[in-house]
Amino acid sequence: MEKKAGNLELVYGRHAVKEALLTGRPLYKILVARGLGGNFFHELRNLAAGRNIPVQVLPAEALDRLTSRGAHQGCVAFVSPYRYAAIEDLVALAPRCLLVLAYITDPRNLGAILRTAAAVGVEGVVLPSRRAVGLTAEALKAAAGGAEHVKVARVTNLAAALRYLKEQGFWVLGAEADAPCTLWEARWNEPVAVVIGGEDKGLGKVIRRECDVLVRIPTTAQMPCLNASVAAAIVLYEVMRRRLMKGNHEGDSAD
Amino acid sequence: MEKKAGNLELVYGRHAVKEALLTGRPLYKILVARGLGGNFFHELRNLAAGRNIPVQVLPAEALDRLTSRGAHQGCVAFVSPYRYAAIEDLVALAPRCLLVLAYITDPRNLGAILRTAAAVGVEGVVLPSRRAVGLTAEALKAAAGGAEHVKVARVTNLAAALRYLKEQGFWVLGAEADAPCTLWEARWNEPVAVVIGGEDKGLGKVIRRECDVLVRIPTTAQMPCLNASVAAAIVLYEVMRRRLMKGNHEGDSAD
Repeated sequence: MEKKAGNLELVYGRHAVKEALLTGRPLYKILVARGLGGNFFHELRNLAAGRNIPVQVLPAEALDRLTSRGAHQGCVAFVSPYRYAAIEDLVALAPRCLLVLAYITDPRNLGAILRTAAAVGVEGVVLPSRRAVGLTAEALKAAAGGAEHVKVARVTNLAAALRYLKEQGFWVLGAEADAPCTLWEARWNEPVAVVIGGEDKGLGKVIRRECDVLVRIPTTAQMPCLNASVAAAIVLYEVMRRRLMKGNHEGDSAD
Repeated sequence: MEKKAGNLELVYGRHAVKEALLTGRPLYKILVARGLGGNFFHELRNLAAGRNIPVQVLPAEALDRLTSRGAHQGCVAFVSPYRYAAIEDLVALAPRCLLVLAYITDPRNLGAILRTAAAVGVEGVVLPSRRAVGLTAEALKAAAGGAEHVKVARVTNLAAALRYLKEQGFWVLGAEADAPCTLWEARWNEPVAVVIGGEDKGLGKVIRRECDVLVRIPTTAQMPCLNASVAAAIVLYEVMRRRLMKGNHEGDSAD
């Protein structure tokens, strides 16, 4: 295990470490800051013992250094690097909704989006492997454990990935600030792939061209641009709202 | 102006400084990191010149120190402290929607929520003056200028503020993870005061009791808790969706 140290990644923060333990992700060692007790650390030790994972106690400063002063909340875990799925694996899950992130560069934004994706029940997330942030320790921390519940695929060519999803029967629904149609007026069917652009830049011409539907989230003129994590949440929850409401009115449309 | 230095607050980041300039907020001096040029700084200098505000060039390290290594992006402004409105001022605007934040403690969350509030067109935001973060430099930076477009009031007693809003004809709509009714099933009328709880803690018993309607944003069992900024965005955009959709179907309900 020591030999693998160079390949290991850090996960830190209470939520993130606990989720990594609960979901059975390969985990080599846990570091806990000296002097911390209480229910959380008691539970953490029990979970670690149950999986035969060593827990080492170190001064808090050592954890600060390891995480570059990240908000580790007294615990850090060494895990095997995040294992990305292939996009075919995501499709094989027969998902009703996938989320495609076009060039998110802020790890905290990516983490926040994964947390929302896990909460809303998105089955998989697609990231480009270049010009975008991957599942770094900071992103995993911000995801508060969400990354353990959503499969994430990385693709080298995002436009090709969208074409592949369309061939597989997905509607590709892109959010774009200047789309003529609002999110609420637009129509789509499931399975749907929701595409959210990066911070500031939007989707870009190439990705926009691959979308079946482009929708705008209405905003005021003074603040025309939403945070990517907020935009993702609004579109994903609208997908969920329609699914639930359709369920409620099944009688209405069964003619 | 120098004498006031002790009472001044910092605003930093390109969006935030530019918005402070554009909206005419009292602004005493702008600091720019040495060696930065380009369109943004050209525009900033013109705006500052137009308002007779001095611009001083300093090494980037000085800006790092001033902002405690915040993401200042090369510009910092000294502004007069945020002037909170009174809740009566908010009501006097005859708003259709106010946002009440119950005990948000993370300044980045508060800023993100103000950005969304400005984007969705909420007319005012109410914060408690204790046990919650106020409009600090970090919050203003995260708001990306949003705080310049939304009036913010601080109140000493949040439950009393909600009772006051009810007396003024507001429906009080609280988001709570274990509410029996989902956001989409619930009914309310405008004007509406949307109440969002703090990180982790939710609304708490006292605030819950003052709500006319409690709604749940559905989540999966694995990730039952949304970030406060995401929860606020989903509820506020549902308020906006209903308003717009009602407008679209006015004929339907005019019987």
